[in-house]
Amino acid sequence: MKQVLIKDLYRNTESFVGQKVELSGWVRTIRDSKTFGFIELNDGSFFKGVQIVFDEQLDNYKEITKFPISSSIKVEGDFIHTPQAKQPFEIKAMAIILEGSSNVDYPLQKKKHSFEYLRTIAHLRPRTNTFSAVFRIRSLASYALHKFFQERGFVYVHTPIITGSDTEGAGEMFRVTTLDLDNLPKNEEGKIDTTQDFFEKESNLTVSGQLNAEAYALAFRNVYTFGPTFRAENSNTARHAAEFWMVEPELAFAELPDVMNLGEDMVKYVINYVLEEAPEEMNFFNSFIEKGLLERLEQARTADFGRVTYSEAIEILKNSGENFGYPVEWGLDLQTEHERYLCEKVFKRPLFVTDYPKEIKAFYMRLNEDGKTVAATDLLVPGIGELIGGSQREEREEVLLQKIKDLGMNEEDYWWYLELRKYGGTKHSGFGIGFERLIMYLTGMTNIRDVIPFPRTPGNAEF
Amino acid sequence: MKQVLIKDLYRNTESFVGQKVELSGWVRTIRDSKTFGFIELNDGSFFKGVQIVFDEQLDNYKEITKFPISSSIKVEGDFIHTPQAKQPFEIKAMAIILEGSSNVDYPLQKKKHSFEYLRTIAHLRPRTNTFSAVFRIRSLASYALHKFFQERGFVYVHTPIITGSDTEGAGEMFRVTTLDLDNLPKNEEGKIDTTQDFFEKESNLTVSGQLNAEAYALAFRNVYTFGPTFRAENSNTARHAAEFWMVEPELAFAELPDVMNLGEDMVKYVINYVLEEAPEEMNFFNSFIEKGLLERLEQARTADFGRVTYSEAIEILKNSGENFGYPVEWGLDLQTEHERYLCEKVFKRPLFVTDYPKEIKAFYMRLNEDGKTVAATDLLVPGIGELIGGSQREEREEVLLQKIKDLGMNEEDYWWYLELRKYGGTKHSGFGIGFERLIMYLTGMTNIRDVIPFPRTPGNAEF
Repeated sequence: MKQVLIKDLYRNTESFVGQKVELSGWVRTIRDSKTFGFIELNDGSFFKGVQIVFDEQLDNYKEITKFPISSSIKVEGDFIHTPQAKQPFEIKAMAIILEGSSNVDYPLQKKKHSFEYLRTIAHLRPRTNTFSAVFRIRSLASYALHKFFQERGFVYVHTPIITGSDTEGAGEMFRVTTLDLDNLPKNEEGKIDTTQDFFEKESNLTVSGQLNAEAYALAFRNVYTFGPTFRAENSNTARHAAEFWMVEPELAFAELPDVMNLGEDMVKYVINYVLEEAPEEMNFFNSFIEKGLLERLEQARTADFGRVTYSEAIEILKNSGENFGYPVEWGLDLQTEHERYLCEKVFKRPLFVTDYPKEIKAFYMRLNEDGKTVAATDLLVPGIGELIGGSQREEREEVLLQKIKDLGMNEEDYWWYLELRKYGGTKHSGFGIGFERLIMYLTGMTNIRDVIPFPRTPGNAEF
Repeated sequence: MKQVLIKDLYRNTESFVGQKVELSGWVRTIRDSKTFGFIELNDGSFFKGVQIVFDEQLDNYKEITKFPISSSIKVEGDFIHTPQAKQPFEIKAMAIILEGSSNVDYPLQKKKHSFEYLRTIAHLRPRTNTFSAVFRIRSLASYALHKFFQERGFVYVHTPIITGSDTEGAGEMFRVTTLDLDNLPKNEEGKIDTTQDFFEKESNLTVSGQLNAEAYALAFRNVYTFGPTFRAENSNTARHAAEFWMVEPELAFAELPDVMNLGEDMVKYVINYVLEEAPEEMNFFNSFIEKGLLERLEQARTADFGRVTYSEAIEILKNSGENFGYPVEWGLDLQTEHERYLCEKVFKRPLFVTDYPKEIKAFYMRLNEDGKTVAATDLLVPGIGELIGGSQREEREEVLLQKIKDLGMNEEDYWWYLELRKYGGTKHSGFGIGFERLIMYLTGMTNIRDVIPFPRTPGNAEF
């Protein structure tokens, strides 16, 4: 008998009517009377489990009734179609074999646990409903992003993780080294001799693949990255992790509105994909994690995203009569409270804010004609704040070079980046989306630690 | 007029007949007579470019004839269908506008460059035919892998990059730190106080996501990873890089033959996908990189992969009459020369070797009944040697624990890994495939530095 997955039982129910099936999985719950019992079996292939009915005719009936929760078992039985019942089918067991027992101290007994506690057993938490749903959505959303870009002919680029340069000219980085810290080599000046390190110079973990992606956009036109990025910020908030994944599309022959359109299409595509592929999980989130989640996503999926300039947004905020914790003034960056107010209260949908003051944005963003703002955009979404940050890139070599000098950055570190402007440079634009932010947006989960399988935060690199 | 991609001109040629089109791209070559000229335009969307015909009727005719190679331009013109000609169509320009000029010192003039030289301009090399083909195949093969696993219901897991543990109990690792190396904090014993580091302990870059993936397989049944991994080995060979990508599927309720079948299906799927999606690139490799490549892939795509035990393989090698550089003896690991001899000369197709001596394989591999070998497999392929390494995992807690103790490993580091055996452990199996090896196999490229966009090797973290 061929092993069957529970997902197939749900998705192709009709084809199993009258069949014998063999299943493997883990015991979620078990209850019994003197003569018969029920096992809720989950095999990981699907959000829901299947009910196994067994009775005393089985030789090992007594033994079965004592299987600890989470034991792994193999079941052979008849598929019983019960279209009128709450559960559309069940399995009448002919044989149940214990594959791996569990232990009475199994931490995930039937009672509810806090997310904080579950983080301490990150190796077991995907066995719970919440984390099973979160990490299946994470997988589906990853694939939806690849599918979206590949269907449009974008080339996926693996930009380097270890880097000799600091992409954004800012941000605290993790150092990567093979030097023996107990016995550091020194040079004549008494400084650490980095020429003896693995890469013969100081190297760090990347904070963004953008600059490398730009080089590839100027060869393949449309490219994207999807990989891990790192920030060594010592912030213990629900929104920061030291290691997280980013998606960064980059388009040649494209201006700011082109990437805004792309970002809007992308977000809608991913929402549609997870709603279609995982309705059970999405309903679970809507019921147990964030009431109103489906309504919020339905609105985003169907509405035209709003568009407003930073300068207009500042006026709106100033005239709002709201009492914000952070000041609102042209030239100051928008805080999460401002961002959420704009998209949740004013526009009531996802909102692109554009044309920020040059002083608060990165060096590579294209200077607008006004000389004061840059062609940058943030996508703000209800419940989250900033989801996407993008810009048109400064393609004018002399403007870029001046900016690098003005900021006191080391021109030599950017030799190849500048060369991209020298040899057939074009207008080009791109954005970055923090993948964990997207998962929080899709699921309603509010702590980044709960959407990363094994999160890395200050003081935490367990597992 | 909507911008058109060159890929669309090739893929949907008929639909453009009689149309006006607008294209953007880079000048690959340009030649002219007194009254008319030709530009080969490439826009990155497709391996081939399109021929632009322009003549002196254009106001800026003289200027156009002087465009440096690699300048970016915008072209408006008539699509001319030429089904009888060598090129099935060309564009008769009505207007050509320079978007970004290039420089006469552009390094990629028409002459041929060595791969070694091109590595020094990794930001420009994707503009050459070879690297355009390599990195499009890399993108397509990445997607084919995701598609393969997702279609089979596998859950994609992002395993951590920064780790507090050393997965394989071996392998040189990169250390990750935020400590100030010029001013290292010391503890009372005069040792470096790692509790003051970002993660409050020593941390490194991962060498494999397998152990974490196992935790997820015991929740989702079938999972896979696809992410960067690292080795701080100081080896300057054509096969080693410090940073490379790995794919690691892991299956619960699966024994060794199950993952061998999966690996065979996967390799065939990826070959089929790139042959179908990028025939131009694959033909290019067959003509200019490795004669016979397509024949080799065709054979792999259609043959049943061979299967032989390690013990049988040793006998075959001993009786071969070949003069190998490395000794052949039961208990010694197979070297690349042995691996290639087996699959290229004896089996003449991809070959799974199974059941290796336990001493030469990793601690987590399942001990066979003979007490001497483990349920491990390597997939050997012509031209490469080892492509896949996999095993059934030791699911018996007491056997695993004994192994950890025997090897002098720190039991406490594996507390959660051992718990996976304690709480409903099952038979489970998986494998790892080095993604760059796969790309080399698909393209015929022989140096790993030439299949990674920005390779990291000893002394090299440029770009």
